[in-house]
Amino acid sequence: MEKLLKIREQMNKEQLDAYIMLNSDAHQSEYIADYWQSIAWLTNFTGSNAVVVVTKEAAILWTDGRYFIQAEKELQGSGFELYKLGEEGVPTYSKYLGSHLAPDANVGFDGRAMGTSSFTQLKKAMPKATFRYTDLIQDIWQGRPELPQNPVWAHGLQYAGKTPAEKLADVREKMAEKHADAYVVGALDDIMWLTNLRGSDVENSTVAFAYALITLDKAYLFIDDHKLSADSIAHLGDFELHPYDAIFSFDLAYESIAYNDASTSVLLFESLLPSAKKINVASIIGDLKAIKNETEIKNIENSQLKEGVSLVRLYKWLEDIDLGKTTVTEYDVEEKLKEFRHMQEGYLEDSFHTIAGYAGNGAIVHYRSQNGGDKLEPQGLLLVDTGAHYVDGTTDTTRTLPLGPLTDEMKKDYTLVLKANLALSRAIFPKGTKGIQLDSIARQYIWQAMLDYKHGTGHGVGFCLGVHEGPQSISSKLQDTAIQVGMLSSNEPGLYRGGSHGIRIETLILAKVVANNEFGTFLGFDVVSYAPISTVPVVRELMTAEEIQQLNDYNQLVFDKLAPYLMAEEQVWLREATRAI
Amino acid sequence: MEKLLKIREQMNKEQLDAYIMLNSDAHQSEYIADYWQSIAWLTNFTGSNAVVVVTKEAAILWTDGRYFIQAEKELQGSGFELYKLGEEGVPTYSKYLGSHLAPDANVGFDGRAMGTSSFTQLKKAMPKATFRYTDLIQDIWQGRPELPQNPVWAHGLQYAGKTPAEKLADVREKMAEKHADAYVVGALDDIMWLTNLRGSDVENSTVAFAYALITLDKAYLFIDDHKLSADSIAHLGDFELHPYDAIFSFDLAYESIAYNDASTSVLLFESLLPSAKKINVASIIGDLKAIKNETEIKNIENSQLKEGVSLVRLYKWLEDIDLGKTTVTEYDVEEKLKEFRHMQEGYLEDSFHTIAGYAGNGAIVHYRSQNGGDKLEPQGLLLVDTGAHYVDGTTDTTRTLPLGPLTDEMKKDYTLVLKANLALSRAIFPKGTKGIQLDSIARQYIWQAMLDYKHGTGHGVGFCLGVHEGPQSISSKLQDTAIQVGMLSSNEPGLYRGGSHGIRIETLILAKVVANNEFGTFLGFDVVSYAPISTVPVVRELMTAEEIQQLNDYNQLVFDKLAPYLMAEEQVWLREATRAI
Repeated sequence: MEKLLKIREQMNKEQLDAYIMLNSDAHQSEYIADYWQSIAWLTNFTGSNAVVVVTKEAAILWTDGRYFIQAEKELQGSGFELYKLGEEGVPTYSKYLGSHLAPDANVGFDGRAMGTSSFTQLKKAMPKATFRYTDLIQDIWQGRPELPQNPVWAHGLQYAGKTPAEKLADVREKMAEKHADAYVVGALDDIMWLTNLRGSDVENSTVAFAYALITLDKAYLFIDDHKLSADSIAHLGDFELHPYDAIFSFDLAYESIAYNDASTSVLLFESLLPSAKKINVASIIGDLKAIKNETEIKNIENSQLKEGVSLVRLYKWLEDIDLGKTTVTEYDVEEKLKEFRHMQEGYLEDSFHTIAGYAGNGAIVHYRSQNGGDKLEPQGLLLVDTGAHYVDGTTDTTRTLPLGPLTDEMKKDYTLVLKANLALSRAIFPKGTKGIQLDSIARQYIWQAMLDYKHGTGHGVGFCLGVHEGPQSISSKLQDTAIQVGMLSSNEPGLYRGGSHGIRIETLILAKVVANNEFGTFLGFDVVSYAPISTVPVVRELMTAEEIQQLNDYNQLVFDKLAPYLMAEEQVWLREATRAI
Repeated sequence: MEKLLKIREQMNKEQLDAYIMLNSDAHQSEYIADYWQSIAWLTNFTGSNAVVVVTKEAAILWTDGRYFIQAEKELQGSGFELYKLGEEGVPTYSKYLGSHLAPDANVGFDGRAMGTSSFTQLKKAMPKATFRYTDLIQDIWQGRPELPQNPVWAHGLQYAGKTPAEKLADVREKMAEKHADAYVVGALDDIMWLTNLRGSDVENSTVAFAYALITLDKAYLFIDDHKLSADSIAHLGDFELHPYDAIFSFDLAYESIAYNDASTSVLLFESLLPSAKKINVASIIGDLKAIKNETEIKNIENSQLKEGVSLVRLYKWLEDIDLGKTTVTEYDVEEKLKEFRHMQEGYLEDSFHTIAGYAGNGAIVHYRSQNGGDKLEPQGLLLVDTGAHYVDGTTDTTRTLPLGPLTDEMKKDYTLVLKANLALSRAIFPKGTKGIQLDSIARQYIWQAMLDYKHGTGHGVGFCLGVHEGPQSISSKLQDTAIQVGMLSSNEPGLYRGGSHGIRIETLILAKVVANNEFGTFLGFDVVSYAPISTVPVVRELMTAEEIQQLNDYNQLVFDKLAPYLMAEEQVWLREATRAI
């Protein structure tokens, strides 16, 4: 409540009728550094999706269904009211402001934390309002963490496969197609990909804070240069270096400039030449980055083998424990996995907070164990969704492990999810096929049983970069992005029964050409993540002979790939775990 | 060549640099009356998709891949050059005009024959041109057919299930949602649905030329009243009648008006109040019309039974003939079917020209036999895609009939197409699922064999109205239209091998609710067309037990439904044709 009073004092000083806060950084990143977590500081709410609006009368926090229960607890005593996104009659914050403030109201927000696409929505709802870009938090947040200044390192050619100069050439070709003289890049993973740099400014991310600006003959990287080693500066070659903040006052002439409205902050957008034509491109670099090159694909294989070894050790460790006698919690599972990963060369960090959800917790799609997590019992299912950044690739794997006796419903659900995963992995489809067309091929067996899961089947996966990346989306989104050769995606159907169990089986799949004939070019997938899929819960009668063969072949592949890297008793365990059914 | 000279004379008189002709009527209908077939008169080309451009230097006809061979033949001596739509480097007519004429050129076309959406494209390509709406053909086409003046009849409540007054109430509710004071309706099938009238102004169509204009308290029907019987006028009640052409000068005040840019001609659009806000609605009536009501559904069942009887008689007739001894052509098949249909009560006409394609002709998706058609041999496959308008429903059914020995490839292709058809018919899916999501569920087995078909899997089907209607499309189109309960669609996967055979199996499917549970509302389909699916070409090993059961169940259903209406020897034939495998 005290913090809220202070915000209102600041609003008063700056004559603002409303102040908006977004859980975002200056690059509209998925994961954000502590410096940017002002909503958590102000409201105590720690979920990832949050918008705050403070007016003279109201203080409101918006979040979505994943976080309703958590938000209700965390907001107690903060003075903030919870608005449940997606529930009937709940307006978006833009619409709320549009209907609760005077049309000519003064509205403030940190111009770095709002993307231009969000601002477009806001302006639509409040066409006559005056907007001021101001960070009211800085003066009142005592002990606000500094913006991270962690060292940046070069992701050498042996990993990246292409030099920054080669990537610039590819980018400029796309710029020419869009008739853009310049291209401003705000998305951190796009900048890391382009420059073959990696950082650690943000947890679960291999990025450093930077901006890039590309013209047809020059390239500029805006980054605080004390972060860069001599080695990483040397390999950059083509980029002229400027301080991180210098982009906002950078003097450059261009007639047209490309930007991506989802990862360009309002402040960055407003710093572009007013006279220049602004071209909103979905993401020039995003499209290039999604197609993994030969070198990247070789590296992905390496990192997946290391991840596979770590996962096998985790599953074996868990199976060796008598859960009736020894206490193991969800949190122990997360920590144990980190321990195994640290044994692998090139492990950097987890690519997201491990989801180890036992029993009903598995049904919470973005579950994160609290206070040590629940104790595992020798029955039911444990869902483990986890990933890591290795220097040679990013992983994301989910398995659902039987800890003891299972109900018939659990077994049937497990088998349906497995059928969905196998269907997508073996799918063959003509060039040009979009994610939405593959999503229903995965989902069909689950639909046929009159069940469904409320998330996409697959997202793009970065290369030692964002574990979620675009442009492809294997989901029900009506999105005109074809699956292309070299795209790495997740394949993660699921089924969730609140209070009982959650099931998800996730492998990564790499698109490749499988045929070229008079009917066209056909693509398919290689499964490139290696972790045994438990056959214990499988209901054979629900599977076709082809599916059983596919499952057995995959488990055999896992054994063949991982055995050389395992110790003798681990090999014995994996041999048993991958036995054909 | 002579006609072309005359056109250029007319162009000269009216000082036009180019004249555009579209194969369209004043309502942008799929099928058009003879009066509108000026392209065929001018160029001899009789295909359905055609655009003609005449400039001082050039005379060009555009058509698509279905018609390339036919167009090359028919255009000989016409003075027209063929532009092949979809081939690399071939511009659209708009782009051609944009790049070949002076920017300020004078361009003419019949303002009735161009829809506003096409005109938008044209204006984009020629922003500085002057456009004149003029029909240059009228004065030079000696013996041009009159606009049809056929009688119109009332489609009584026992068929329609809803009165025009009830339908108007539904339409006005949608108008209110769109904030439209008025709604101009150009699409003939929409007008027929709304007024419960039917006509026969156009072959294969149950429509009469008319316009409708609806306000929040009045409704106007523009139709030449000598077409209407006293009975049909009486049942119209709510509509004020005006002559067909009167809409162009109709004096009515409204502030905002809804229209559909795909079925509103340029001339009609320009006749709307300049001061009014124009609201382009996909189609208010189209959305309502697509959802069949209980009475319509009962009638559909009746018409499908009659069609099934006709088809059984056709298949039996064909099977009884010794093709080695008796000459039967594709054309004979078409005519024989008409004969059988005429035996059924309420048969009006065919809903499209029957496609009877033997051997390689079956691979031509929109095949139409010429000069009597090819002779059938006692081997290979005959594709018969056909439909009719009955007073109680419109049908559209395709079967592929084995006439004798088949190759392994034919059998395998047939089985894959059958699997696709069965997959869509049995699909269960959550409310909100779009056509594109179901299309891939049908197509998956064909894709898996690295094959594909270059047409959609399903279209909407009218009720004693257009055999193709929207808004739903079960195809790869990225279209945000969910399949809704009561929608009637076709299910027609295929496989085509030029020079050898074409296979298509088409049933009509009616969407219904199958479950309501904690995971949502789930829909599925009833197959509502009844014609035996030949089991002769089926490769059992490619089918699952479930699919064989589904096939046997369907054929049994066909027998049970049709047997009561068949003569004894027809029953015997059908019993054998529907025998379980």
